[in-house]
Amino acid sequence: MIDKDLSYYLKNSILVWNKLSIDEQGELVQSSALNCYQKGENLHGRESGCIGTMFVITGQLRVYILSDEGKEITLYRLYANDSCVLSASCVLANINFDVIIDAEVNSEVLMINSAVVSQVMKRNIYFECYIYKLTTERFSDVMWAMQQILFRSIDERLAACLWDASLHNADSVITVTHETLAKDIGSAREVVSRMLKYFENEGIVKLSRKGITITDKRKLRMLIK
Amino acid sequence: MIDKDLSYYLKNSILVWNKLSIDEQGELVQSSALNCYQKGENLHGRESGCIGTMFVITGQLRVYILSDEGKEITLYRLYANDSCVLSASCVLANINFDVIIDAEVNSEVLMINSAVVSQVMKRNIYFECYIYKLTTERFSDVMWAMQQILFRSIDERLAACLWDASLHNADSVITVTHETLAKDIGSAREVVSRMLKYFENEGIVKLSRKGITITDKRKLRMLIK
Repeated sequence: MIDKDLSYYLKNSILVWNKLSIDEQGELVQSSALNCYQKGENLHGRESGCIGTMFVITGQLRVYILSDEGKEITLYRLYANDSCVLSASCVLANINFDVIIDAEVNSEVLMINSAVVSQVMKRNIYFECYIYKLTTERFSDVMWAMQQILFRSIDERLAACLWDASLHNADSVITVTHETLAKDIGSAREVVSRMLKYFENEGIVKLSRKGITITDKRKLRMLIK
Repeated sequence: MIDKDLSYYLKNSILVWNKLSIDEQGELVQSSALNCYQKGENLHGRESGCIGTMFVITGQLRVYILSDEGKEITLYRLYANDSCVLSASCVLANINFDVIIDAEVNSEVLMINSAVVSQVMKRNIYFECYIYKLTTERFSDVMWAMQQILFRSIDERLAACLWDASLHNADSVITVTHETLAKDIGSAREVVSRMLKYFENEGIVKLSRKGITITDKRKLRMLIK
């Protein structure tokens, strides 16, 4: 995929590309890079500061927050064509929290340097508006995660999580670890393992070394209100 | 305060007022109203839909979410000069959750009809950008609330909550109910009452019929990391 030039990806990723001047387009191309990340690699941490605006070309990223005690809460996942503005939070007025981003599979990510994003935002109101719109998109994701964790019961959350994973998985086996599921539903690994065992006894899933196979989709769906 | 005309309030509330055409300004004035709400009154509920963009002139509003089981989680509070765009979520692409808004004291709120906000947003990019910026402001508030609830211990959250209330209260007595405190920290009323009793035994607060008096500010502050 890397044989295409950067402007090709930028044009496809930035919906207001045609509202940018030739100079502005050039600046963004100059300050972009197509980075490849390995499965499990950390793209953005609490200390990495304001690295840049990201557009996922291929792969899957997990965006989460981390407590001082090391507890992780998944906010949302990013797939191909999704954008991440929070990795460049310094370009956004009013955003004062930091997220952590890991690659969950090998991923290609288009990254635009935050200083240049910030400059173009100051000069081009369409680009500024576009970046803020992308930010509000994630606001809904975060509210959804929050409502899941605070309002839904553990079995419901886990069922919803497995259901979601099955939609993003071509295989019938979901290879996610119990640890990751726990982070996604804001619970502990032991609780997830116990609940999965219960699901298995109910004939909803089958657990194996390879992962989790959903054996009764209808029953799983019924657990989700 | 109501003797001033609406354009006075709009000019003060909308920072990009000068970027609007005379026609656009006129449309916004025409579709605005200065509403007075009594303490305890509901301004916006799950069924009220997309009523409009609000600017608080005086008073205090509480913005929260509600589960199907009736559990409330406070997202943030709005004071004089604060704006609320989520009560007009239909004008925002990508926002698909609803919040509930109550007046906690008698409040005056400038409300602009959402259909007109939407029209002006479509025509004026500066206004559109401004509305999205206001939205991201609340994104940080919600992340803060989420981190409080998911990462902090109950005593720390309650201490932070009392500390915050004391900053917004000229009186030394905080008149908030245990029920409201529970909603603010995402816990149950009984838990709050027990913890307040513990705080009283530690000499941090004094409980009375009138409310909660902070007797040792330094100790209270020390509970908050």
